[in-house]
This record gives sequence, structure tokens and C-alpha cells, in this order.
Amino acid sequence: MEPVEAREPNFADDLLAAIDEKGSPVCVGLDPVFERLPKEFQQDHREEVARTVGIGAFCREVLRVVAPIVPAVKIQSAYFERYGAPGVELYQGLVDAAHDLDLVVIGDVKRGDIGSTAEAYAEGHMRGLLSPYGATTGIPDAITVSPYFGIDGIGPFVDLAAQEDRGVFLLVRTSNPSAKDVQDFADAGGKKVFEHVAEMVAKIGGGEDLVGQRGYSCVGAVVGATYPQEARRLRELMPQQIFLVPGYGAQGASAQDCAAAFQDGAGAIVNASRSVLFAHESAQYAGMDWRKAVELAARKLAEEIRQAVGK
Amino acid sequence: MEPVEAREPNFADDLLAAIDEKGSPVCVGLDPVFERLPKEFQQDHREEVARTVGIGAFCREVLRVVAPIVPAVKIQSAYFERYGAPGVELYQGLVDAAHDLDLVVIGDVKRGDIGSTAEAYAEGHMRGLLSPYGATTGIPDAITVSPYFGIDGIGPFVDLAAQEDRGVFLLVRTSNPSAKDVQDFADAGGKKVFEHVAEMVAKIGGGEDLVGQRGYSCVGAVVGATYPQEARRLRELMPQQIFLVPGYGAQGASAQDCAAAFQDGAGAIVNASRSVLFAHESAQYAGMDWRKAVELAARKLAEEIRQAVGK
Repeated sequence: MEPVEAREPNFADDLLAAIDEKGSPVCVGLDPVFERLPKEFQQDHREEVARTVGIGAFCREVLRVVAPIVPAVKIQSAYFERYGAPGVELYQGLVDAAHDLDLVVIGDVKRGDIGSTAEAYAEGHMRGLLSPYGATTGIPDAITVSPYFGIDGIGPFVDLAAQEDRGVFLLVRTSNPSAKDVQDFADAGGKKVFEHVAEMVAKIGGGEDLVGQRGYSCVGAVVGATYPQEARRLRELMPQQIFLVPGYGAQGASAQDCAAAFQDGAGAIVNASRSVLFAHESAQYAGMDWRKAVELAARKLAEEIRQAVGK
Repeated sequence: MEPVEAREPNFADDLLAAIDEKGSPVCVGLDPVFERLPKEFQQDHREEVARTVGIGAFCREVLRVVAPIVPAVKIQSAYFERYGAPGVELYQGLVDAAHDLDLVVIGDVKRGDIGSTAEAYAEGHMRGLLSPYGATTGIPDAITVSPYFGIDGIGPFVDLAAQEDRGVFLLVRTSNPSAKDVQDFADAGGKKVFEHVAEMVAKIGGGEDLVGQRGYSCVGAVVGATYPQEARRLRELMPQQIFLVPGYGAQGASAQDCAAAFQDGAGAIVNASRSVLFAHESAQYAGMDWRKAVELAARKLAEEIRQAVGK
């Protein structure tokens, strides 16, 4: 796409710049599961809530290890909500820790609701709390959002993305095996729900005020790498959307599968969570310090995707 | 439906018993918006997070006022997440406060994700934290869940509902104007996405271990009162599902519209949030103490729905 200098740089520009700087369009996902942490982080916690201490310490070290290698991290809210309010506090603390390391942060919260309630979600997750002391804390650069409610449910997130210079990734094609159950439901012409949603996303995200200097909108799309054929079709339907691509690694998609989400070597970012986070479990890194395993797994991710995308 | 005594009572039985006891199938929604609270709860809070104090005090009084009148409350997570971790702590505290008042509590969280992540959400919102001190706190009796991920995304919630004796309400037809954008997408035979989802919900929720003594499943459905024709169709498609019915009052649906969600005077619960919570703003309760306004609005809700349903 041709750059349009007259436009303000938006979330997409910031993300693409971070990708250029680190040299690979990849993202490490923080999906911490207590039982899979390196042993040193698993002490005897009779109170489950105390596990947040070990999870927090582990995640902070992971962030330090991957920050020189990858442009972005995706923090999966569910694994923190698992521990109630203290877990949410940890999630927000990790968002700030990642920002301190100059990482772009995607909050994988998959929120969605009807208009008035969507506003409250958008404010809570994309604006944060006003304080006389200044900076807002615990707010990621972008979040994931569900499209099931239609345009009035999506609108408040998009509006706040424009106002606060953040991003939104709408769920279009999820990476799980049963994504087909609802998303492949087709109309008389063979168009499927996820294609219909893609058209909606392209339309909502195509607003003049939403598209940045490099031609990409701050409204992106989640497109699973586990469905490369669908990704190619979606690339046509959503030329202005950055694709957030889950499914690589533990979920079975190859680097070549991920490449289908790109156009001219850009426009997407591939996420890997468990294959990096729990690299110490893998035979190929056996006997290694877990930090080294995470580092090598992150480098492998970055290199494989870089090559597959042909950057 | 005919009672089956051999079965264990489930969430649906508990909810139906609570409805019978209070005499009306209604639910008050806690969707607190700081700017709309009675003036006494709106002090000068330069720190937005301090607003949770006023919101908490107000919500606790609302719970005390409505507890003798309605069987259940629905707490809308978005209005608490709005305030970050302290907001989530308040949400959980209000769940416990409502339980202390013998109210059935529905956590309106609309969570959903792929299988492994859905498990973490289900554990966080339906099981809570194990503690050597005993009781789990802050966990509602049922939550709302998004169907977009298909069966493997819904499964973990349903499994935990069965294990922990809780309920799940899957979003089938939302109450907002643009619900049609995605949910009315139709196949060659004219079947729409929400009908397709309804069939999926009926199938998932129909498992022998999920259906209680009165013939209703612990897997229910969200069906907006603003679409009464769709509700009648959905009643046929999901005979074993309890319908959680939003849209009455502030969103414009009448008591008669709500009646479409019932069968034989049962099988649904109608929610009203803003029309009860902010009753003090209404001309008909002008000059009244806000508690009295909430009480009268809750009584009006209960009476109107009771009459429309013909109980």
C-alpha cells in the first residue's frame, strides 16, 4: 500500500514500525498455567490465589527475555481472571511491565456486549481510569472484541480506538477446530458467517479517521492460522485490516499456513503462546535453563515466520 | 413439563423454585453508572477509582431493597471492569452480598474463547479459588457465555456447570437493534444464525446429566424481549432451555413482548436494569426517596411480568 503522509499515525502504524524494528511480525502470548510453570515458580500454595505471585514472577521474566526479540505480546485475560480480582491486578501490572520494555501490548479479552454496556467495556479496557496523578495504567494498546452483537456493539470499541489511539481486533475466524460450528454457516450464495463478518469489519474499519499512514486501519481482525485457505479469502475481503493470527505452534499451524495472512510481506502478526511460554517442556530444549528455552523458542518463532513471509 | 424426581435438582430447579417463592419470574440488573447514581453517592472523586466506593454502597442498598421482591439479580461485569481490578473486587463482593440475601445471582460476563482458554474463564467465573478456609467467594450461580467459537469453546463452561451445579446462559438472540447484523444472516432454507445457534444450544444443553427435575437444563439461552416473534420461534427450538430475557423497560420491550419467551407460564426470567436501578430519575417517582423509587419500580416490574405471563 502507498503511504499517506498527511494522515496521523495510528495503532497500525505503531505496530508495523515495531515489527520493522524487531525484524519479524510475531507476538508472544502470555497464557500462563500454574501447573506448567518451571518448578521454581510452583511452590506449595494451599491458597490458590497465592499462585498469582509465581505466575507474575514468571511472566515478568518471560517479558524481559522476549522483549529484544519480538515487537509485541498478547496477554490472555482468561488466565488472570482465573484468579479473580488479584489476577486482574496482575494482568494490568504485566501490561505496564510490557510497556516499560517498549513492547506493543494486545489485551486478549474478547469482550462484547450491546451498545451501552460495550461502552463500559471499552472504557475499562481501552481508556482506563482518570487520575490526578497523570498516566493511565494497565491499558493495552489494543484488545480483541467479539462481533456477535453487530455494529452497535462494536461501535463503542472502534470509537474509543480512534479517540485514544488504540487498536481493536475483531474476531472473524477463530483458530479452534469447532470454529466451523457457527462461523461456517452459509447463505444461499455460499457466503459464510465469517466472510459476512469480514465484510462488516472491512466496512466499519475503513472509515477515513481510522486508517493510518501505511494504509492499515486501527480496526484489525483475528484470523486463525489453522485455516490458511480461509485466511487467503479474508485477505481479499479485508485489505486494510491487520490480521492477528493465532494457531501457530501448539495449535498445529505451520509457518507456511501463517503466510496466507500477509500481503506484500506485511499486514499481519503471528502469535505463539504455549510453544514459547512452556518451551522448557519441549524435548529439543531439555536440560536447558528455562529462560534459555524461552529465548530460543522466541528466536525460532521470529525466524520461521520471517522466512515464511519473505521479509 | 413433567417432573422427574429421580434426577438431581440443578441450577434450573433452584432458579424455578426461587421464582415460585417470590411469585414473579423477574431479575433486577445491576448496571451501575456513576453519573446516574443518586446525588449522595456522587461525591467529588478526582480519582475515578474512588467511585467504586459510591457505586458499591449504592448497589448494596439496591440489593437489600429488591431482595424481598425478586428471585434473582444479574450483575453486569462491564460496569465493574470499567474500574479495573478494584471494580472486579467489588463485582465479586456484590455477588456474595446478593447470596447473603438469598438471591440467585447471574454474572453477566459474556465470556467465550477457544477450548483451552475457555477452561480458564470457566474456572475463574464458575468455580473460583480453592482455599483451605473453605467456601469459594465471588462466584455467581450462572454466567452468560458467547457461542461464536462453537462447541469446543462452549464445552468447558457446560462441563463446569454440571460439575459445580451452576448455570450457563448462551447468547442466542441479543436485545440490541443491530443484533440482526450477524444473527439474521440466513442460509438457503431461510434458517438464520440465531436459529442455528439455538439448535446447537438445545443439543449441547439436552444431555441427560444437564436436565433437572422440572425438565429444564442448566444450559439456558439469552433471548432479547425486543424480538418477540423470534422468541416464539426460539421457544419451539429450545424447549428445555430457561430463557434469560433482557430488553424490558429502558430498551423498549413491553411485558407482553416478554411473555413470548415463556411456556406454560414458566421457563424464562425477565431482566430489567436501568428502569429499576435509576428509578429515581423517572417522573413517576419524582420527589421520592430513591430507595422507595427502586422498590416501587421493582414491584411494578414483578407485577407486570407476573400478569403478562399469567401466573
